[in-house]
Amino acid sequence: MHINAWFPNFTQRAFFPALLKIESGKISTIQAIDQSGLSNKQLDAWPYILPPLVDAHVHIESSMLTPFRFAEEAARHGTVATVSDPHEIANVIGLEGCNFMSKNAQKSGLKIFFTAPSCVPATPYETAGSTLGADELDKLQKEINWVALGEMMNFPGVLIQETEVEAKLSLAKRLKKPIDGHAPGLGGDDLKKYIQAGISTDHEAVTLAEAREKIQAGMKILIREGSAAKNFDELAPLIDEFPDQVMLCSDDLHPDDLIRGHINLLLKRGVQKGLDLFNLLQAASSNPVNHYQLPVGQLRVGDPADFVVVKDLKEFAVIATYVNGRDQIDVSGNLLQQAPEENPAALPHFAFKPKDFEFLGSSGTYRIIVAQDESLLTGDEIHLLQATKGLVQPDLDQDIMKLVVVNRYQFSKPQVGWIKGFGLRKGAIAGSIAHDSHNILAVGTDDRSICEAVNEVFSIGGGIALTDNHKLSSLSLSVAGLMSNRSASEVAALYQDLTQQACALGSTLRAPFMTLSFMALLVIPALKLGDQGLFDVNQFKFVDPFVGS
Amino acid sequence: MHINAWFPNFTQRAFFPALLKIESGKISTIQAIDQSGLSNKQLDAWPYILPPLVDAHVHIESSMLTPFRFAEEAARHGTVATVSDPHEIANVIGLEGCNFMSKNAQKSGLKIFFTAPSCVPATPYETAGSTLGADELDKLQKEINWVALGEMMNFPGVLIQETEVEAKLSLAKRLKKPIDGHAPGLGGDDLKKYIQAGISTDHEAVTLAEAREKIQAGMKILIREGSAAKNFDELAPLIDEFPDQVMLCSDDLHPDDLIRGHINLLLKRGVQKGLDLFNLLQAASSNPVNHYQLPVGQLRVGDPADFVVVKDLKEFAVIATYVNGRDQIDVSGNLLQQAPEENPAALPHFAFKPKDFEFLGSSGTYRIIVAQDESLLTGDEIHLLQATKGLVQPDLDQDIMKLVVVNRYQFSKPQVGWIKGFGLRKGAIAGSIAHDSHNILAVGTDDRSICEAVNEVFSIGGGIALTDNHKLSSLSLSVAGLMSNRSASEVAALYQDLTQQACALGSTLRAPFMTLSFMALLVIPALKLGDQGLFDVNQFKFVDPFVGS
Repeated sequence: MHINAWFPNFTQRAFFPALLKIESGKISTIQAIDQSGLSNKQLDAWPYILPPLVDAHVHIESSMLTPFRFAEEAARHGTVATVSDPHEIANVIGLEGCNFMSKNAQKSGLKIFFTAPSCVPATPYETAGSTLGADELDKLQKEINWVALGEMMNFPGVLIQETEVEAKLSLAKRLKKPIDGHAPGLGGDDLKKYIQAGISTDHEAVTLAEAREKIQAGMKILIREGSAAKNFDELAPLIDEFPDQVMLCSDDLHPDDLIRGHINLLLKRGVQKGLDLFNLLQAASSNPVNHYQLPVGQLRVGDPADFVVVKDLKEFAVIATYVNGRDQIDVSGNLLQQAPEENPAALPHFAFKPKDFEFLGSSGTYRIIVAQDESLLTGDEIHLLQATKGLVQPDLDQDIMKLVVVNRYQFSKPQVGWIKGFGLRKGAIAGSIAHDSHNILAVGTDDRSICEAVNEVFSIGGGIALTDNHKLSSLSLSVAGLMSNRSASEVAALYQDLTQQACALGSTLRAPFMTLSFMALLVIPALKLGDQGLFDVNQFKFVDPFVGS
Repeated sequence: MHINAWFPNFTQRAFFPALLKIESGKISTIQAIDQSGLSNKQLDAWPYILPPLVDAHVHIESSMLTPFRFAEEAARHGTVATVSDPHEIANVIGLEGCNFMSKNAQKSGLKIFFTAPSCVPATPYETAGSTLGADELDKLQKEINWVALGEMMNFPGVLIQETEVEAKLSLAKRLKKPIDGHAPGLGGDDLKKYIQAGISTDHEAVTLAEAREKIQAGMKILIREGSAAKNFDELAPLIDEFPDQVMLCSDDLHPDDLIRGHINLLLKRGVQKGLDLFNLLQAASSNPVNHYQLPVGQLRVGDPADFVVVKDLKEFAVIATYVNGRDQIDVSGNLLQQAPEENPAALPHFAFKPKDFEFLGSSGTYRIIVAQDESLLTGDEIHLLQATKGLVQPDLDQDIMKLVVVNRYQFSKPQVGWIKGFGLRKGAIAGSIAHDSHNILAVGTDDRSICEAVNEVFSIGGGIALTDNHKLSSLSLSVAGLMSNRSASEVAALYQDLTQQACALGSTLRAPFMTLSFMALLVIPALKLGDQGLFDVNQFKFVDPFVGS
């Protein structure tokens, strides 16, 4: 196969007209073409070849798509490879989930690599579906050949040298695999200790000062721009300051964002900011390929023909995405392969009654979780609630309603707490995405709506659901209650429709289902609800919702 | 031009048969060749292409060759580029010397780059020929476009934030040029402070532990293998441990060593040690090219055709060294260009009498400098010396004789001290290489021999000289008293001959002229002789040679 295109030269930091030949999936020839023999019109029409784009850290589960379906969409945006941490599915079904992710990804044709989830379960204060120790991760290495130990979120465990944490770090070192970090706000001596434990990346830096300290201490920084956290505008200057030390990643990318673009969008935005395109491409390709030792081509003769063809260097609209010499975007816009049909670990069919969501108690003051728009953090407030016939009642005028957590693994009595900030005037929303244990979460104005929404989530095998008190709507995520096997555009459309319906119920949040999914995340302050009770993150213990009469 | 050869692929970490085309000095095509169409015999006969070899830190003056002559020889060993610190000539004739080095180098065809000497003079306790402040270095930037601020030897000055040191560091930062370090043994908080001042490399690490600490603190390590310091055997493991953080350098390479090989020899030794060849090549080429942003090709289509052709991957015998598409080794083994004829700053014609080297005093104990073989360090001992008619006498039975320093810049009375360790039984040796101020140094058994040798150095315009009491021999280094414009093989032969003659006089040192050149280096312990007197480096002050009667 032959392609005439503008080809990048990283030494000269310029594009030149070239003929590229591909044989047996590899680049066999790169030949500069004398411009004098070509008209300007011809040269203007030639597309540009870019190195293969890499998302250096992504939880594919957050796209609500199987790896195959994620890859199908990501290929349209020039993504050739990802370093993916199957942390979410691992919390639900452990090694089986990791193996599913890997096998399903392989069928896509893209180069989807995995890290070993290092923190499953996230805390001992919740019911997760699995526990992965160092022995399990060792076993996993033999099955999916993970490229790194996934983000070590338990940074206190690293600092105090917890036995199990040490065992996982040692395993990675023995296998000569890099160890990914997760150290929001860590600095000074603690940062140095964390790095000395062998941890070489961080994607949690949110300010330039924090990122620069981490780089100067020896870390590589993954600049993150996802659906939940958006750090590109703040951290982009690092790309020109430390071109060898930065990569690009999404971390979490919801289906409605993924269909708009992926790493290619960051190229566009970076160029708009005046960043050096070759530094951007290095962050988007060779830096992660080198750091994680990925078998991904780098546009050299003899390399696998992995690259992207774009129309121009302004919009970065992708014409073709080559992996091992095959364009992954066919004329109909679909992947070359058929989507596989596996469907592991749909939810059990638990059914609840409205009575199960009653809150027994008397009138008095209660601790209220305060949800904040586009934030993982919550507030912790005290409000007066009235009881009728021994049942504490929501106070919709004050925007206070019930938040419930239902164990997805064993049939148990739901946990019920109080939340402010969702703004619902009627109905309920529910979902089986609940970081990190992925129990069922619901917020609603009345017990019948909550019950309907929760039962719907179980009846569709997992997913997200909404009721306005009359009509149920839902999006089935029956792959471990996290992902769908439908196409990205279908899932995105359904997801956007549910978001709009939640808005119609009165929700003032930009992404109510995303905010909902963080309400049981017991490691992020201040007040959260787990399947075992109300949890004060700052005190790191369970607390009583009732304050006083 | 076309070359058929085994071509390196750094992604696959393998060589493959390829056709390389060069047009207008650039690589225009790289084309993989299907092996099935070629016989094993054909493939076995094909040479190997390597990326251009770079000496990442060298004082060309130590080769006793002008940059042109150095390049002529280095090209035979596959060297395409160097990062050169003209620290020696700068101490002698300042900016004029730096400009000479640059202009002379340009005529060679090789890519010889320069750093700005940061520490001229080296100390205020000696007479040097020049002082370079931040203003002079700024002026120099406009003339030779230096690629980095040269090794910052004044590390105490960095730590206490001396005004002049700060001004030089600021200049480099303003110009966005890296700053080279020189920090023997520095560790802990002082190392961190040194790095925070913006210094990014070090070539003085001698142990693995020291080098690892420096790398982990954020530095790049230049592994040094020169004539004076040999750290390759100790530090080679870093090449596989930290492939992105290491480079190779010689620092000081004498003519007799240079004719045996250069960076190519380190490839051979590295491969013998079992190191990864691609990591070795990275240390030898892309790492310095990237760090110092050198305009040197990296074997990509569109790059300047800078590369090396070797016969095999075992001996690394160089067949051709291409710079901008031209082989720098012609059939007669000479550079393409004619050696230029400039001859700046020969020594003045001072003449001394034997009486000028008398040591007035009485019998008693004296402090004696003890020279050590292949070391910059000296011992500091006390010995009894006898005086006759008011003149202190050498004691050849104890191997104690005179060491003299003669100011090369102004006619002054010579400084005379006592030294042990050279082993001469008769005659004297002298030279105008005396780090870092390059005054005239001589060691001899009697005043007449010393006087003859010193006068010979002046009469040949600078160089090294030897007398056996009957016959004078010398090697003229009339370019600033440091370098010769003769070819490397001629200079190496003359230098080796003088070394052998010194051996015949009784010298027990492996390289007596090299050891001599360090005897006035006032920054290396313990006892040294400067042109202003005997200097105790540990106390950092001048001391009286006479101890007591």
